[in-house]
Amino acid sequence: MSHFSAIQFRPDGLFLLDQRQLPTEETWLHCASVEETAKAIEEMCVRGAPAIGCAAAFGIVSELLNSASAKSLPWGTYHKSFRTNILRLRKTRPTAVNLFYALDLMEKKGEEIPANFDYDKYFAILRETAVKLFDDDLKTCLEIGKVGADFLDDYLSKRFPGKIKFNFVTHCNTGSLATAGFGTALGVIRELYSRGKIAKVYVDETRPYLQGARLTAFELAKEHIPYCLIADSMAAVLLRQGAIDCAIVGADRIARNGDTANKIGTYNLAVICDFHKVPFFVAAPLATFDAKIDEGSQIPIEERAAREMTHFFDKPIAPAGAVVFNPSFDVTPITLISGIVTEVGMRFC
Amino acid sequence: MSHFSAIQFRPDGLFLLDQRQLPTEETWLHCASVEETAKAIEEMCVRGAPAIGCAAAFGIVSELLNSASAKSLPWGTYHKSFRTNILRLRKTRPTAVNLFYALDLMEKKGEEIPANFDYDKYFAILRETAVKLFDDDLKTCLEIGKVGADFLDDYLSKRFPGKIKFNFVTHCNTGSLATAGFGTALGVIRELYSRGKIAKVYVDETRPYLQGARLTAFELAKEHIPYCLIADSMAAVLLRQGAIDCAIVGADRIARNGDTANKIGTYNLAVICDFHKVPFFVAAPLATFDAKIDEGSQIPIEERAAREMTHFFDKPIAPAGAVVFNPSFDVTPITLISGIVTEVGMRFC
Repeated sequence: MSHFSAIQFRPDGLFLLDQRQLPTEETWLHCASVEETAKAIEEMCVRGAPAIGCAAAFGIVSELLNSASAKSLPWGTYHKSFRTNILRLRKTRPTAVNLFYALDLMEKKGEEIPANFDYDKYFAILRETAVKLFDDDLKTCLEIGKVGADFLDDYLSKRFPGKIKFNFVTHCNTGSLATAGFGTALGVIRELYSRGKIAKVYVDETRPYLQGARLTAFELAKEHIPYCLIADSMAAVLLRQGAIDCAIVGADRIARNGDTANKIGTYNLAVICDFHKVPFFVAAPLATFDAKIDEGSQIPIEERAAREMTHFFDKPIAPAGAVVFNPSFDVTPITLISGIVTEVGMRFC
Repeated sequence: MSHFSAIQFRPDGLFLLDQRQLPTEETWLHCASVEETAKAIEEMCVRGAPAIGCAAAFGIVSELLNSASAKSLPWGTYHKSFRTNILRLRKTRPTAVNLFYALDLMEKKGEEIPANFDYDKYFAILRETAVKLFDDDLKTCLEIGKVGADFLDDYLSKRFPGKIKFNFVTHCNTGSLATAGFGTALGVIRELYSRGKIAKVYVDETRPYLQGARLTAFELAKEHIPYCLIADSMAAVLLRQGAIDCAIVGADRIARNGDTANKIGTYNLAVICDFHKVPFFVAAPLATFDAKIDEGSQIPIEERAAREMTHFFDKPIAPAGAVVFNPSFDVTPITLISGIVTEVGMRFC
């Protein structure tokens, strides 16, 4: 079960594998400040709900590490800057709840620090909080992998008697690049592959940002898991042909009733799976469930710049001034979801 | 009802508007020979089922016009080269039936020419055949526009009492660029717009070749028809929101039972329309019906190069060696089609 991490906290601060450059270049971006971290999140150098949460927490610590003023101030004086930093990061992206979960955790820890604590003490506390968040996310992913693989091996074996290996389809990237490591939906696929249960993974390229083509295919190729890259509109044909046994995707936020916000195109995939009677699963940590949201329609959906649709790198692919609809996420109602894999067991199935 | 043509037969032969360069550049490609015409079809300088048929017929005539040997030979001697040329063009693309319809027509006309006819005589006959094919296609498109607009105005007005303008979604390009001019499905939209019946056209970008973003948006922008460009996976969200009243697409080949082969992604759109109870129409000339094909499963589906999926222009967007599924078309069963608009009336509705 190999995996890697695209988020590293080094002695000089936070480093992010710049996912905009993948799969052609593996370059690391140094985020020495909160502003640099916030920009990296906004510009999708790092993306994926759990990864954004980890990056934000480490961004707070990286700022501390590289701020001369922080080093000379007791916590009571620095606390105001800390709150401003939390606020800046909260504004980067609206949909993934993990970002707010991570920032809430850091903020709460900050509130508990005595005002007279000096830099070394409060740096250690906040660093430890971010490291624990990261480590916990990795552990959670490994658990999700086990829970999902145990369940799906049993579920699909019963559904297709005699079949040993199964064909999956997935959307966007939910792997090592989207988490502290290992992944959620792609973690389940990794775990199933290690158990000899994967025949092939069909990878939706995931327009407009191509996380499937650039990131998921990159991760699967690295681990020699058989995959086939498809345009998002092609899965329907494969479903009709019976070439796909099961779909599994991640989540950016899950309402109390199970409605799931995830990368744009997820709802389309859920509908075509339903039409073809192919099971459709979600895999996500419990932190993705938002207890304050009753149902999917309440989840805020980020709309991103038209340029992601009208240009490819710097080349225009649409007429100048094209009007564009570019929501980054959509909501899949629980009625189309066969079950949700979490680190503590299956939900809604 | 403005329209233009991307296929021009000039005194020095066939010129094609190079659709690979749109929407950024409008360059015309001179196809002086059958080989150049065949390459232009294979490399998608010209695409769209009716347009391919017209281009192939003019390619035969352009070769005649620019061949020194033809000019010195009577038909009986040149006839063998003519047959070779027909054969070369038949091998360019397998799915669109209009190509074979056009080449059958040219070949039949060739068989009727007396062996002793000199160049001027047989050139005139073949040129006239190609010109008539082109003119007929344009007339057919205008008729399809009228039939479709008459029907849909009535159909949608009954379906949405009190609503005056309707929101459409379309896939790929079926406009002036895909035909001799005006278009099929986009012709219906043009005609409805001229009658004040179009609120907005949602344009699927149509991966991997982006005919929607590059060509349909270009045509709609030229005529100031309100449109909104979306990724292929986004239509499902709009259908769920009730933002789309009707879908209309073209066809590359229609089986006797009404099953329709069209650009990859059409089947996906048909399924999500069915799920959301939104009507889904096809518009195509009678020439698109293939009497030799009983049902959709018999239609040959072209698979194109992996590079269309793995690269954008010269930039890789997937890992080196990525395995790819890249069918150029899919088949939508008649059960998902609300009706087919032809130049002589509605079919299957």
